[in-house]
Amino acid sequence: MEGHTTAINNAMVITMEPGQPILEQGSILVEGDCIADVRAGSDFSAAPHRDIIDGTNLLVMPGLVNCHTHLPMSLFRGLADDLPLDVWLQEHMFPAEAAQMTPAVAEKWAFHSCGELLLSGTTCCCDGYFYEDHVARGVERSGIRAVLGQGVMDFPAPGVPDPGENIAVAEKFIDKWKDKNPRIHPSVFCHSPYTCCADTLKKAKEMATSQAVLFQIHVAETRNEMALVLSSQGGRASSVVQYLDGLDILDDRTLMVHCVWLDKEDIGIVKARKSSVVHCPESNMKLASGISPVLSFMAAGMDVGLGTDGSASNNNLDLFSEMDMAAKLQKTALDDPCALKAKSVVEMATLGGARALGLDRHIGSLVVGKKADLIAIDLRSPHLVPMYDPFSALVYNARGSDVIHVMVDGVFRIKDRVWGD
Amino acid sequence: MEGHTTAINNAMVITMEPGQPILEQGSILVEGDCIADVRAGSDFSAAPHRDIIDGTNLLVMPGLVNCHTHLPMSLFRGLADDLPLDVWLQEHMFPAEAAQMTPAVAEKWAFHSCGELLLSGTTCCCDGYFYEDHVARGVERSGIRAVLGQGVMDFPAPGVPDPGENIAVAEKFIDKWKDKNPRIHPSVFCHSPYTCCADTLKKAKEMATSQAVLFQIHVAETRNEMALVLSSQGGRASSVVQYLDGLDILDDRTLMVHCVWLDKEDIGIVKARKSSVVHCPESNMKLASGISPVLSFMAAGMDVGLGTDGSASNNNLDLFSEMDMAAKLQKTALDDPCALKAKSVVEMATLGGARALGLDRHIGSLVVGKKADLIAIDLRSPHLVPMYDPFSALVYNARGSDVIHVMVDGVFRIKDRVWGD
Ligand SMILES: [Zn+2]
Ligand SMILES: [Zn+2]
Repeated sequence: MEGHTTAINNAMVITMEPGQPILEQGSILVEGDCIADVRAGSDFSAAPHRDIIDGTNLLVMPGLVNCHTHLPMSLFRGLADDLPLDVWLQEHMFPAEAAQMTPAVAEKWAFHSCGELLLSGTTCCCDGYFYEDHVARGVERSGIRAVLGQGVMDFPAPGVPDPGENIAVAEKFIDKWKDKNPRIHPSVFCHSPYTCCADTLKKAKEMATSQAVLFQIHVAETRNEMALVLSSQGGRASSVVQYLDGLDILDDRTLMVHCVWLDKEDIGIVKARKSSVVHCPESNMKLASGISPVLSFMAAGMDVGLGTDGSASNNNLDLFSEMDMAAKLQKTALDDPCALKAKSVVEMATLGGARALGLDRHIGSLVVGKKADLIAIDLRSPHLVPMYDPFSALVYNARGSDVIHVMVDGVFRIKDRVWGD
Repeated sequence: MEGHTTAINNAMVITMEPGQPILEQGSILVEGDCIADVRAGSDFSAAPHRDIIDGTNLLVMPGLVNCHTHLPMSLFRGLADDLPLDVWLQEHMFPAEAAQMTPAVAEKWAFHSCGELLLSGTTCCCDGYFYEDHVARGVERSGIRAVLGQGVMDFPAPGVPDPGENIAVAEKFIDKWKDKNPRIHPSVFCHSPYTCCADTLKKAKEMATSQAVLFQIHVAETRNEMALVLSSQGGRASSVVQYLDGLDILDDRTLMVHCVWLDKEDIGIVKARKSSVVHCPESNMKLASGISPVLSFMAAGMDVGLGTDGSASNNNLDLFSEMDMAAKLQKTALDDPCALKAKSVVEMATLGGARALGLDRHIGSLVVGKKADLIAIDLRSPHLVPMYDPFSALVYNARGSDVIHVMVDGVFRIKDRVWGD
């Protein structure tokens, strides 16, 4: 692969690099796994030994970054819908996982989910689940880039029958995958403050810190969670965020997923600790968990990424519909049609997500030296015509199925909508 | 075309006929423009002179019914986004229409919109716009089924420079198209209670009644509209619905679009008058107009259809994403994950819409004698696998692009995702 070059000529190029204009006619040169050049009007077709893509009618942009998934749960997509979160989780998901999830099943459905992600324009996802070593094998085979967190909780879980081993299993996973594949970043995923006790949270975070990996956790997803956590705290904290902060969980390598029930004080704490937030509007809406105040997060300057959550609570992994939902939900919640404009949502789904995962030096925008993770959208379908504003088109009319080419690490994983693997 | 028959064998068939189960393996026989047979397990391939479709891996269901569009406005898709409704309408849409909308433009973009509708599985739409005679020509050419309402308002409009002629123009349109094409049902579309005075509304409704056609009107879309209408009423009505009811506008041939700001009393009035309602969640969310209490409408037994609104305020005409949004929005609004279940949403987008338009004797479900308006969905994409509950899959994971065949009036208009016309 090294030395292999690809040129995409005459495409509309959106680099997502702050301050850079949209290139109405731009060209991109990929050398090996990196972006070697991005220019307006250039044509890189002259040199030999190059794959040449004619970018006419294509919009090329960074691959989308899905900051929260549970990859193997595509097996449970649509298994139990239109139910309250606790019933869905306790009576359907946990039993289904206990009965059906094996290492081979985890690998199979993780691979399946990666296909869905790639086919809808996502080139990097951040996952949290169990049997993560097997998830990693499916991910590796698919060609997608991923942060993969081995799940930790204080109950018997798939592959971790003894909760006393939960952190050791996670550390073993991290050791194994730390330098194995440049596309795979191991991580720890503590399920939540209500399934992990204070001691587990502290120890898992300490391990993550010593390993220098991302610490993921579901935070303040439901109103109920606050009561659940705080009642166990005997009044020592007045919010989930305060509770976690008191355990020294929050720093710039902590990824807080959902954050629906955060108040002003909580936002100040998260901002001060430089932790990142993942917004999962479709899952929050489907489970009626509430509406996350993402505009307040953005106003505070926090790093906010977009996530689909698992396909059992969404029920898809398509970040295009997630962008649409995110924009429309904030307008509705704030009674303001100007809230969360299209461009901000695209930022959230690209560079914002890369920042939230701590990977923005490598991905999230198309600039020389970053990894060549990019997607090409076919602009000829009726629903994308006319196009006055590309950001508006990406958020309000494009669908995952409009993505026709997907490149990760300089390699086309989807070409003409066919998943190569 | 008469006598031409098509058989679809071994497909999963959802008839949407009340009380009928999903046919895991079903077959459909189409003769001429009608459904001649629908059966579990049958195989209609034996007889000669038949197009045979192998339904393996296909889900066949009634074509979707989009109860509210402004077809030519696809020209303005994405022209002005993330703005308040009044600014969007008065400063962008009305001037753009005045400057750019001609008969040829209306026909061209209506045709374009029909392509988008067909490609995303809609086989019948209900439109309201101007130059509707030219819209009808584009619609006719596309092969879609449609209720088409000539626009009426008290301001100069495209094709109606003298508002004094607005009702006469509408009646002329109805006379011309009344028995011209069995797929086209002419109608009157009064833009709103704030752009049509009481006298215009009354006269337009009287004309619609004498012509026995559907009377369409935007009703209670924004909170602001209530103040606008009521201030002109000097306290004679306390809601937009009461105002319209006082003008004898509401009956079983009245289609009320949006209905965001209706209270209990209003719902009682609409129910008593047997008027129908169209829910347009994406447009309402994008313009931050509010959340329509559709579950209250359904609980009252009202006929509720689903609509996208024009592609300038959505910005697409895809009823699949509209179904997803509708379900998730009600769950969010009512803080109840069990609200508006997937099956109810599919009903709203098929038979419910047909009822709202007064066309349920002809379309909306797959039963012998109804028109052969049906769609086939390819079930092999990763995001549709696995499928425990087809209704859940249709609402929460399917996309318009999953529709691969579309039949209207017994004729395939889309075959293998190619728009034939
Ligand atoms: Zn999650
Ligand atoms: Zn409208």
